[in-house]
Amino acid sequence: MTSELAFIQALRRIATHPGARGLDDDCAVIEFGGEALVLTHDAMAEGVHYLPEQDRADVAWKLVASNMSDLAAKGADPVGVLLGYTLGRDDDRFLAGLQEALAHYNAPLLGGDTIAAPEGQVLGLTAIGRATHRPVPSRKGAKAGDTLWITGPVGAAMLGLEALLSGVGDSTAYRRPQGLIEEGKALAPHVTAMMDVSDGLLLDAARMARASGTTLAIESTAVPLATLEDRLAEALRWGEDYQLLFTMPSDAEPPIPAHRIGRAVPANPAPVILDGQPLTEKDGLGYQHT
Amino acid sequence: MTSELAFIQALRRIATHPGARGLDDDCAVIEFGGEALVLTHDAMAEGVHYLPEQDRADVAWKLVASNMSDLAAKGADPVGVLLGYTLGRDDDRFLAGLQEALAHYNAPLLGGDTIAAPEGQVLGLTAIGRATHRPVPSRKGAKAGDTLWITGPVGAAMLGLEALLSGVGDSTAYRRPQGLIEEGKALAPHVTAMMDVSDGLLLDAARMARASGTTLAIESTAVPLATLEDRLAEALRWGEDYQLLFTMPSDAEPPIPAHRIGRAVPANPAPVILDGQPLTEKDGLGYQHT
Repeated sequence: MTSELAFIQALRRIATHPGARGLDDDCAVIEFGGEALVLTHDAMAEGVHYLPEQDRADVAWKLVASNMSDLAAKGADPVGVLLGYTLGRDDDRFLAGLQEALAHYNAPLLGGDTIAAPEGQVLGLTAIGRATHRPVPSRKGAKAGDTLWITGPVGAAMLGLEALLSGVGDSTAYRRPQGLIEEGKALAPHVTAMMDVSDGLLLDAARMARASGTTLAIESTAVPLATLEDRLAEALRWGEDYQLLFTMPSDAEPPIPAHRIGRAVPANPAPVILDGQPLTEKDGLGYQHT
Repeated sequence: MTSELAFIQALRRIATHPGARGLDDDCAVIEFGGEALVLTHDAMAEGVHYLPEQDRADVAWKLVASNMSDLAAKGADPVGVLLGYTLGRDDDRFLAGLQEALAHYNAPLLGGDTIAAPEGQVLGLTAIGRATHRPVPSRKGAKAGDTLWITGPVGAAMLGLEALLSGVGDSTAYRRPQGLIEEGKALAPHVTAMMDVSDGLLLDAARMARASGTTLAIESTAVPLATLEDRLAEALRWGEDYQLLFTMPSDAEPPIPAHRIGRAVPANPAPVILDGQPLTEKDGLGYQHT
């Protein structure tokens, strides 16, 4: 079996269309009828992306929310979704969670395909959006001198999963993450680069840095945490909080509440500098596709 | 486990958007930037929709072609595709077939998601198209008095699968079906209703009849066959030939070669009349979602 990373790299070699940035966890952006159409597709497998015993209403919610978060990073309004569904257990719970999430995001179900499969459940969701601002934000635009910001705390999903597994505490942040559509639309006219944090702050910052040809210097004391301070290292590497990470010109202030956590500096061999310490992907920055 | 049909019916109750016709094997059609955006999603599972030992290049081809056939029935030009891919065996063969099919249809890979899953491979493809004619053809527009046509023979995929399984004969029609994009675009301005035949001529004709509120009377001797006459009954019920089935006003002639196989008549309890014999879904019209 090919590794996931090798396969994604091979797909990227095929995907030569100028709007084809939508592999892995970014969106494609294409011109359609004089507007910018934003497209993203996420897949989730039982036992990999969700627990076999997890409430399927929460699974449906997260499937929708993670796609909405991709749209949010483009400053896009949801237009609708298409669902690829493998029949499994508790299909009625899945439907209930799907309907709830789609109503929350005002994202109509436009189509899809339902199949029976002999083993294992795999879910796919394609989300379609309409960009509300041109140029459409991307992870590529950070420039040395820009300030670096995040919309809210990291580590909440980590605590939520621990609560779900232990049965103690509030698991909402893990079960019902939020895609920050309104925040993304408000930020889009002001940012130089933007992406959602799905695989961990340090790893996603490294991706933004690599795409932009810069290095991002982060001050850990400035990063808002959902956890106690002693779990900082984990919280910086844990994904699924779906906060928006963005850069702005140094003299600009974001139009919504956000936390300034660092700045972009001239490119350095390390994509991220944490408290003065250069870090590369080899240092374990977050969830890695193996 | 919910039945596939029950789940699709439940999804249809959620899908209240006026453009949301894209459940099961039809496309969604929505307004975007003053144009009609056509969207479809197909999922395929190993062991259900393709043989575990089948060449993954052929599997990729069919995944693309079946989606392109959905676009063809709307008279749409391909804009691009998003792929949901579960890593499996022969991923390099899948990539080769994908690249070949996408080049054939001039449909760029715009995005997608690759996942590792513990068991069984499930593939998903979302195809995006641009309608070339308004109103966009649907399966709903057939009227009593219209003539009924098909673009080419049925039964070819059936013979192709038999050739593949036996190792004797030509399996191309099963392995490498064609989505009739150019034919769909040529027909779109002239048809009253159109759809692709993916689940069998009689079953898909019954769907067109039900959607249109009419009955379709078919003369079996007029149906072009890829098989010998003694397999007529099977060929009328076998899918995956991806021919286009369409109706036209009685005085119109199609702009491309096609076969006139019957006509629309006033609605009757049976959606299809074959050689004077009323047939309903209970008579076994083709591949049924169970």
